[in-house]
Amino acid sequence: MAMQIYIGVDLGGTSVKTGICDEEGHLLTSSEGPTEADLGTERVVANIVAYVRKLVQESQYDWDQVAGIGAGVPGFMDKAEGFIHFSPNLPLSNVPLRRLLEEQWGKPVMLENDANVAALGEAWSGAAKGVPISVLYTLGTGVGGGIVIDGRVLSGATGMAGELGHMTIVPDLEAIQCGCGQTGCLETVSSATGIIRMANDAVARGDKTMLADLKAITAKDVFDAARANDETALRIVQRAAYYLAKSMAMVSLVVNPNRFVVGGGVSKAGDLLLDPVRDAFRKLAPERAQEGVDIVAARLGNDAGMIGAAGLCLNR
Amino acid sequence: MAMQIYIGVDLGGTSVKTGICDEEGHLLTSSEGPTEADLGTERVVANIVAYVRKLVQESQYDWDQVAGIGAGVPGFMDKAEGFIHFSPNLPLSNVPLRRLLEEQWGKPVMLENDANVAALGEAWSGAAKGVPISVLYTLGTGVGGGIVIDGRVLSGATGMAGELGHMTIVPDLEAIQCGCGQTGCLETVSSATGIIRMANDAVARGDKTMLADLKAITAKDVFDAARANDETALRIVQRAAYYLAKSMAMVSLVVNPNRFVVGGGVSKAGDLLLDPVRDAFRKLAPERAQEGVDIVAARLGNDAGMIGAAGLCLNR
Repeated sequence: MAMQIYIGVDLGGTSVKTGICDEEGHLLTSSEGPTEADLGTERVVANIVAYVRKLVQESQYDWDQVAGIGAGVPGFMDKAEGFIHFSPNLPLSNVPLRRLLEEQWGKPVMLENDANVAALGEAWSGAAKGVPISVLYTLGTGVGGGIVIDGRVLSGATGMAGELGHMTIVPDLEAIQCGCGQTGCLETVSSATGIIRMANDAVARGDKTMLADLKAITAKDVFDAARANDETALRIVQRAAYYLAKSMAMVSLVVNPNRFVVGGGVSKAGDLLLDPVRDAFRKLAPERAQEGVDIVAARLGNDAGMIGAAGLCLNR
Repeated sequence: MAMQIYIGVDLGGTSVKTGICDEEGHLLTSSEGPTEADLGTERVVANIVAYVRKLVQESQYDWDQVAGIGAGVPGFMDKAEGFIHFSPNLPLSNVPLRRLLEEQWGKPVMLENDANVAALGEAWSGAAKGVPISVLYTLGTGVGGGIVIDGRVLSGATGMAGELGHMTIVPDLEAIQCGCGQTGCLETVSSATGIIRMANDAVARGDKTMLADLKAITAKDVFDAARANDETALRIVQRAAYYLAKSMAMVSLVVNPNRFVVGGGVSKAGDLLLDPVRDAFRKLAPERAQEGVDIVAARLGNDAGMIGAAGLCLNR
């Protein structure tokens, strides 16, 4: 029998990434096309269907070899039913996406939220390959999370497992309100948005910093300034790192992972961010929850979601 | 073939409980004998071996029917190796317990920590039977925890999964030091010890309360006073409940269980404790992490550990 292939779809607000993986999670080929979210539900679904068909046609593999197709979708869904309840940036709220896709493809389809598939990707063939229990933090505009135990992503009762960005981590006296309505969420400090906010606040109150000369501060600017020993920038990085480590210490007492993986745009800062995270984790987590536990950067970059989505089918 | 039976051992500092379960987790028969911890390692191991042999001999089952034997042990261990690193109340530190027991019994032996086996027991045939993801809090002298996902107890990388009593939950300004060395642990407020401490503090500072008339306050006294509308006692119960709920809200964003189960001596207070826990959880957890999630009292009482230990063998 010809080898089986696994297809992953990373559905974003502006583009749809599709890829073919082998059973080890190696990305064999991939493609990208516009989501066209503004053209409505039918168009988005038709695009996904067409992109996957075209990907296989233009590859050296046959449609018969497709064992299954997984899709990472931003939003809340009923995975057992394959039904999207709500998607913030896509016209897929209240859409039975799995049924629509299975009808077109005639293949088993699995859905999972986007942060969770990225975690599965890193666990399958990235920074947490071969690690029994891994936890991924995705530090971007917000903070996403995903937990993988023995090759399976943990979804939870209502799909809220691994929503680490909304853990209440910042003490009340320092907390600000999060977009979710709560205060003190990890996301308010350890995301790109949080880092930019802290930098703007520092400039606004007149702290001495090279960031004051910039027009619009980015998270990268803050890390560049920290690298140049700007004290204000260093303090901001320290704060983002500290609360991330504090949440890791909490997570260690719940699922006690072997490895924490940090991905997303903010993680490009590398050890400038991760070293203070490691230092703070050593102080905050109980000794026995640290033994053999490491904190590393993600490896798959933007491919993590696509690869992890493909991996959903492997674990059906 | 005759039915298979599963044996569970609940190893405590003063007594060893042994029981026989069927494959559904029903306790068929059980027995209890003294641990004799003061007589040393060899005596304790010999006692365990003898109690299990005797239990089967005096039952209607044959030794051949024993599919496996599980033991819940208080302490830290390497489960893969079956090696006890440290046990606070037993002479079993640095003892290869599994090997010693397997040599005597000629049966597969599984070890797990005591809070985790209780969670497994409740999930197998108690308050979380048939529930995909459940989290047990055991409120006793300390606060223990255990997480069961699809019938398997989550141990974690170093056996620290579900150590919920040491999550940092109390805000810094109100926090006191825990026996573990950290400050603000859940255990400092929501355990029997924590409740008694809060009551003694209230009496010491002259709060008006019927507890002031008692010689040595117990957790039960505090709940009895709360039931009689003593305001100080009500405030203490409220506080213990609030922080328990706060930790549940955190755990909801990590593993998002379908059900929280509350056991241990303190849980005998029933809805007097659980109603304020439910109220606070509704306020503290994100809406989507609450849908269909309930908080219930444990059902198996002191048998939970024995039953869960037997269940370890089922999931080998």
